[in-house]
Amino acid sequence: MACKWWGWGEEGRTYHLPDAERFWAYIRARLGDTKGIPRLDSLDGIDLRPSRLPKEALSALARISGDGGVSTDDAGRAAYSIGKGYKDLVRIRRGDVPNPTDAVVRPHTEEQVRELVDLAAREAIAVIPFGGGTSVVGGVEPASAGPTLTLDLQRLGRVTRVDSESATAVVEAGVFGPDLERQLNAAGFTLGHFPQSFEHSTVGGWIATRSAGQNSTLYGKIEDRVEALHLCYAGGLLVTPAVPAAAAGPDLVQIVSGSEGTLGVITQATLRLARLPQSRDYRGYLFRSFSDGVRAARELMQAGLHPAVMRLSDEAETESTLALRPQPHGASALIEGAGQWYLARRGLRLESGSIMILGFEGEAAAVKRGWVAAKSILKRFGAFSLGKGPGRAWERSRFEAPYLRDLFLDHGIMVDTLETATTWDRYLALHTTVGDALRAALGERSVVMAHLSHAYSDGGSIYYTFLAPQETGREIEQWERAKVAATDAIVRNGGALSHHHGIGAEHRPWMESYLGPEGMRLLAGIKSALDPRGVMNPGKFLVDVPEYREGSSRA
Amino acid sequence: MACKWWGWGEEGRTYHLPDAERFWAYIRARLGDTKGIPRLDSLDGIDLRPSRLPKEALSALARISGDGGVSTDDAGRAAYSIGKGYKDLVRIRRGDVPNPTDAVVRPHTEEQVRELVDLAAREAIAVIPFGGGTSVVGGVEPASAGPTLTLDLQRLGRVTRVDSESATAVVEAGVFGPDLERQLNAAGFTLGHFPQSFEHSTVGGWIATRSAGQNSTLYGKIEDRVEALHLCYAGGLLVTPAVPAAAAGPDLVQIVSGSEGTLGVITQATLRLARLPQSRDYRGYLFRSFSDGVRAARELMQAGLHPAVMRLSDEAETESTLALRPQPHGASALIEGAGQWYLARRGLRLESGSIMILGFEGEAAAVKRGWVAAKSILKRFGAFSLGKGPGRAWERSRFEAPYLRDLFLDHGIMVDTLETATTWDRYLALHTTVGDALRAALGERSVVMAHLSHAYSDGGSIYYTFLAPQETGREIEQWERAKVAATDAIVRNGGALSHHHGIGAEHRPWMESYLGPEGMRLLAGIKSALDPRGVMNPGKFLVDVPEYREGSSRA
Repeated sequence: MACKWWGWGEEGRTYHLPDAERFWAYIRARLGDTKGIPRLDSLDGIDLRPSRLPKEALSALARISGDGGVSTDDAGRAAYSIGKGYKDLVRIRRGDVPNPTDAVVRPHTEEQVRELVDLAAREAIAVIPFGGGTSVVGGVEPASAGPTLTLDLQRLGRVTRVDSESATAVVEAGVFGPDLERQLNAAGFTLGHFPQSFEHSTVGGWIATRSAGQNSTLYGKIEDRVEALHLCYAGGLLVTPAVPAAAAGPDLVQIVSGSEGTLGVITQATLRLARLPQSRDYRGYLFRSFSDGVRAARELMQAGLHPAVMRLSDEAETESTLALRPQPHGASALIEGAGQWYLARRGLRLESGSIMILGFEGEAAAVKRGWVAAKSILKRFGAFSLGKGPGRAWERSRFEAPYLRDLFLDHGIMVDTLETATTWDRYLALHTTVGDALRAALGERSVVMAHLSHAYSDGGSIYYTFLAPQETGREIEQWERAKVAATDAIVRNGGALSHHHGIGAEHRPWMESYLGPEGMRLLAGIKSALDPRGVMNPGKFLVDVPEYREGSSRA
Repeated sequence: MACKWWGWGEEGRTYHLPDAERFWAYIRARLGDTKGIPRLDSLDGIDLRPSRLPKEALSALARISGDGGVSTDDAGRAAYSIGKGYKDLVRIRRGDVPNPTDAVVRPHTEEQVRELVDLAAREAIAVIPFGGGTSVVGGVEPASAGPTLTLDLQRLGRVTRVDSESATAVVEAGVFGPDLERQLNAAGFTLGHFPQSFEHSTVGGWIATRSAGQNSTLYGKIEDRVEALHLCYAGGLLVTPAVPAAAAGPDLVQIVSGSEGTLGVITQATLRLARLPQSRDYRGYLFRSFSDGVRAARELMQAGLHPAVMRLSDEAETESTLALRPQPHGASALIEGAGQWYLARRGLRLESGSIMILGFEGEAAAVKRGWVAAKSILKRFGAFSLGKGPGRAWERSRFEAPYLRDLFLDHGIMVDTLETATTWDRYLALHTTVGDALRAALGERSVVMAHLSHAYSDGGSIYYTFLAPQETGREIEQWERAKVAATDAIVRNGGALSHHHGIGAEHRPWMESYLGPEGMRLLAGIKSALDPRGVMNPGKFLVDVPEYREGSSRA
């Protein structure tokens, strides 16, 4: 299938608005009239800086990677030189790729990856590992001044072994979500990892960025499911022991997880699987307010329940979700008429409440037990059941939201998302502070909304979506204003710099205030051990900063 | 309370053998007659190498750590210079402390720890952080040729804050298990971390060694419960962000966890708590064989249950556990008479079966739900219920086993434990291979037994206890023969070099074959970033090996 270079996912696939008129009226009421900016018809005519790799290097790369292993054409290089964030799409739509990669290389085997990385280190060529390319934080965009190659890992796409006894699978890093699940499902298992990018991202990319799936409350983040992995770095192949747990020094898997290509290339992982759930029961609930919902979410986690999905929209996101629904069909129809009257009597209004999608999955009996326990908690926090309709609707559209973003861009609307996580004691304050920072940066004609979608006993994530009319000609500056305001607010108020998007180039300016010079020094030590030449994804968060490396020089 | 220098725990506390005659008969039948080696009456007369710290250094240490902060007397230094392994106890009982620490320093505050570590780095004095001193792998024994100080962290013993909303606690590293639990319990929480050393070990020690508690199937290993921590290293204080999860590069908590004092001194941690369980229900089950029990354990974990305790003894350990029981009182009485007849009809014999202690704890309803699900699995694997008696008996004696070791030593019997973990597909083979290696090393007059006590969806731990008559005059060589045979077998057959004891000095010879030169190189990079002078717990696993550091020199 061909993928859009100018937007999300497959060419020809678009977001289905069941009642487009109603939805755009909702948007116009908030953002006013907007006008789309024309985009290039195709990347074919794009005029890129020519590849800076000398012929000899290109032939060496081709020799290692075999048939069709290297391409340097402009359209291909352009598509590999940006990710899928708002900033990326604004630029690629107008053909603006200021720092393109110099070649795309597609190895077939781990051995080829090793040779390629060794060659790159010898020749001082920067290497950017590329899985699905869905980074929204500048993870795959070249960021160094020197020659650069992008290592497309899609050909390392096999599930090598499923061990039904240990409930693990050995997989190559380039396997995509749907391919992986299909093969695991056939053996009776699931990884349970469904990030919104699921259809277009790879196992290696998930691990490199510490991805979180929509079912993380049951299955954990990806780093919780990696039993062992392979990392090709210049001069070596790190193979971590495949054991369920150990007390043998620092956990090497947890060093490589989140390394975002700055240490080496993840080529293989042994993943912990779960049994394919027999039963799945996702439902919708309405809370009087986001804060009631957050308190219920906290209680559900601290009571030791294990929901598969727990997603709570704040009031603004609830309102916008309802605007997307067909009227009067579907879920909301359930509470028309008598239901609305009943809600009103309890002081609840659909439009100003907070919707939670809560679901359990697993063995049928376990799902039932989960719901019995959950319902008594939900009741305590005044939640009103919306039945299974909203659960089904969410499940159907769980990977669709990024397609909607394309429509916004077509209409001249800036739309982006950003996320954090914090402890429960700071949760509601951070939700407000970051939201206020975004609203202040965007002005009155804007929508700022958020949800909780990953929860733990000690806290949860906050995921913002923000919309505003594009400032034509200053789209990037406008976006940066919002991004900086929000990220400053996050880091100053005890939020995680990122919960699951990663650092890439976009969050790099905050890394030192987030981790402190001491944390940076530790990261620099790791970097210098495996990538002393600094060829692995340079310019990203794990910058080889000399001031943090006095340790090495003093040794 | 005074602690034994020659054995485990409190002076005057000993293992209660309800039927000593019967127990020693059981031991004599297997090991023959043995004869204890006399031990020193007291450490008071011990003659140690004098402290090598110059007066100026000692006064500087005293100036920093304040009143009573430094001691150099021989008896004190001796007790701080060994751990609590068999090898340690054999040597200390005869007054053999060849490489004593040169001073014991007891800081009161993190700030003092920082100054002490800085001073040590400046003066090239080795620093050994010391929590409870219960290491059984040589973690606290001086292992370098130069001057050494031992940093006793017991005065950093406060629970600074319990955050009931986030269900976390900020605690100083030197707090002991019982003190911690008492304070958490008062606030309605538990850490749920109960290693066998619980009464005599500290939070900092747990984190430094990746400790596992007896309730790890519910609460995880200690590293799973650390939200954030402080690490004092020479020249800095690393403070990791206190967030529930993040995608901001490698996980720094997972680098410090398991660092065993080789990077710096853990001074504080933010721990994830659980609610104090309302209800606790631990029971005994008998399987026909260890392999049936292992299959049931695997099924319990893979079915997604969360037992608080799951401990399965192999046939040899089951037999020895029964020999410890009073006859005919207590648990075993439950299946005397009619019960025995019933067992026999099902082909089960108590003496040749495999006992599992399985327990659930939490809200009463959750405990009930857990048992409903567990019982149907247990039935499928032919388990026979022994009721609550064995559960209660295990709970009462859960921290007692090390006291029994003292009795063995008094009787001239070598006794030690070692442990590993592996994936389910290798589990039974590894259990046999390591057991065979131990039996071959120990000879016919020996007992080798094992249990599973920490289980995961992908595998479980194996914990061996082995006994043999001491070879008088060659006690250490005899022990080393067994240790080497077992550890070789573990590492060659896919076991974790350690699941929860750590590496220390004892497992260091296997680190390279376990992690590969690539893993060692990564560890060396971490070491050189935070401890370039190599003063932190030198000679332990994270040795600053120059050959692994070419990375830094090539930079």
